[in-house]
Amino acid sequence: MPDVAKAILEFIDGVLPKTHATPEIAELYRMMRDYPWRGGKMIRSRLLLAMCEAFSGRFQDALPLAAALELFQNWVLIHDDIEDDSDERRGKPALHRIHGMPLALNAGDALHVYMWQVVHGSGVQGAFAAFLEMIHRTAEGQQLDLAWVEQKRFDLTTEDYFQLVHLKTAYYTVVAPLHLGMLAAGVKPNPVFVQAGLDLGAAFQIRDDVLNLIADFKEYGKEIAGDLLEGKRTLMLLHLLEHASETVKNRVIDILGQPRTAKSVEDVQWILQQMQVLESIPFAQNQADLLATRGLALLEKGLQSAPNQQAAQLILETARSLATRVA
Amino acid sequence: MPDVAKAILEFIDGVLPKTHATPEIAELYRMMRDYPWRGGKMIRSRLLLAMCEAFSGRFQDALPLAAALELFQNWVLIHDDIEDDSDERRGKPALHRIHGMPLALNAGDALHVYMWQVVHGSGVQGAFAAFLEMIHRTAEGQQLDLAWVEQKRFDLTTEDYFQLVHLKTAYYTVVAPLHLGMLAAGVKPNPVFVQAGLDLGAAFQIRDDVLNLIADFKEYGKEIAGDLLEGKRTLMLLHLLEHASETVKNRVIDILGQPRTAKSVEDVQWILQQMQVLESIPFAQNQADLLATRGLALLEKGLQSAPNQQAAQLILETARSLATRVA
Repeated sequence: MPDVAKAILEFIDGVLPKTHATPEIAELYRMMRDYPWRGGKMIRSRLLLAMCEAFSGRFQDALPLAAALELFQNWVLIHDDIEDDSDERRGKPALHRIHGMPLALNAGDALHVYMWQVVHGSGVQGAFAAFLEMIHRTAEGQQLDLAWVEQKRFDLTTEDYFQLVHLKTAYYTVVAPLHLGMLAAGVKPNPVFVQAGLDLGAAFQIRDDVLNLIADFKEYGKEIAGDLLEGKRTLMLLHLLEHASETVKNRVIDILGQPRTAKSVEDVQWILQQMQVLESIPFAQNQADLLATRGLALLEKGLQSAPNQQAAQLILETARSLATRVA
Repeated sequence: MPDVAKAILEFIDGVLPKTHATPEIAELYRMMRDYPWRGGKMIRSRLLLAMCEAFSGRFQDALPLAAALELFQNWVLIHDDIEDDSDERRGKPALHRIHGMPLALNAGDALHVYMWQVVHGSGVQGAFAAFLEMIHRTAEGQQLDLAWVEQKRFDLTTEDYFQLVHLKTAYYTVVAPLHLGMLAAGVKPNPVFVQAGLDLGAAFQIRDDVLNLIADFKEYGKEIAGDLLEGKRTLMLLHLLEHASETVKNRVIDILGQPRTAKSVEDVQWILQQMQVLESIPFAQNQADLLATRGLALLEKGLQSAPNQQAAQLILETARSLATRVA
């Protein structure tokens, strides 16, 4: 496979408008180009391209969809960063921190439009419907996530949690890339990949949440446990709330309900300690391992019929590192 | 022509998701349906439908595009209201005032996706490209508008102003509806309608800005001249800045540069008085009249070849009321 990241960025570069005689409009174009060139890992696009290759599709048929998936990721990140009022994205200030919320919101919308142009222009049968469903699901997941924080909902079950991560993460991270790769290859999508994608996507999200706690815990003094500061509902948190004493539970809820700036380092540390006492982090890690194992088995099963087994191995490796990554 | 508003809303009702077992997701669906059912005038869709009819197209071929234009208008309004932090929309609180900014932003994105579904499903040749261009232009206009306020730019010419209103208003209000109506009728679009649309759209925006000042001026004591409070660049303001003495100009810039809440009623009244002294409002009204006359003449010329002259008359009346409305 050619240098994937380079090919995708070249494609995007050819699609997005470059410059404009009016300085303000030239600035809009620069804003649209900012996130894509900050160097994401492009895991989702790699999965898509490898899937197309595994089923004997042509690289150039999958490339537009891979680029569209990157455009999707980038406009969503611009809007997510506004919704969460994030400070940073890929090691630099979030777009709305640089240009203000109104201009960043508008730039996200402009980028969204180019994503549809690329999907439309790809000519791949079924790709349009797949993007519609993917974005619709992701918006539903985002709604769940934001509404739970806003409504101070803590009475959530692990079933609720899995509904969230399937919608918010698994569809666009694994299910849609696998599906789009098959469409690009002109192969009828196999439903086994949907279940594989949901499992692997959920495992990825749990791992990501665990890393957020552990990494921050090590970097004590910096910004510890950003997810706890944001009040994000994670599997560890739900486990803690389910198994803690009434007193501990109430204090956790009390702390998480406070605005971000009102939370002290000690409060957040105390929640982390309670999670350690009740082994909430090992519980979550174990759940992620189980899901990763199941998802990889399903993926392997689905890939048995793939003509190009070298590409199939690449998919399995990518999925494995996605679902079991330790840093 | 059938009851246009009813037909469009029925179409939209059939497209948008209705309800969901998860209450938060059902809430997302309600948010997506909120603005469309607040009863907009649907002028743009009416133009589109009448244009199709004038060129012997079928109502059912134009209806999906009219519905998509309404969906466009509504998701853009959700995002615009966030960008401008508007209080109200169509007599009710703006969506982000009801649900908070993050959920409203996300609901706007979800609605945006359904717009593309409808455009894609319309099967009208060229419609996809027309929507791409329309949204791209509108985003450029929004960028100009927001950037000028943010950068405290006052050294703008009337040429700058017309670039703004063409991009921000004229394309999606007149140019695109006329163009899309012809596409739905399967007729090759006539470039005379582009110039007509730019003139009529600019006349509409100037009238709208004038009404904002005059209406508020009469309702003294309420919120006078919302556009002045927002620091919006209007033709009247540019005329004032161009013709005022250095002292007056500096004071106007000083007042407009202050945050909205820091502006006093007296300050805003004073600016209005300066506009009256220099006859900035009659100047703008005159410009709008000239543009309306020129635009209507071009529109009439383009419509001469239309087979259905009854529909052509309806278009001319709609355009006339749009560009010359007094309330």
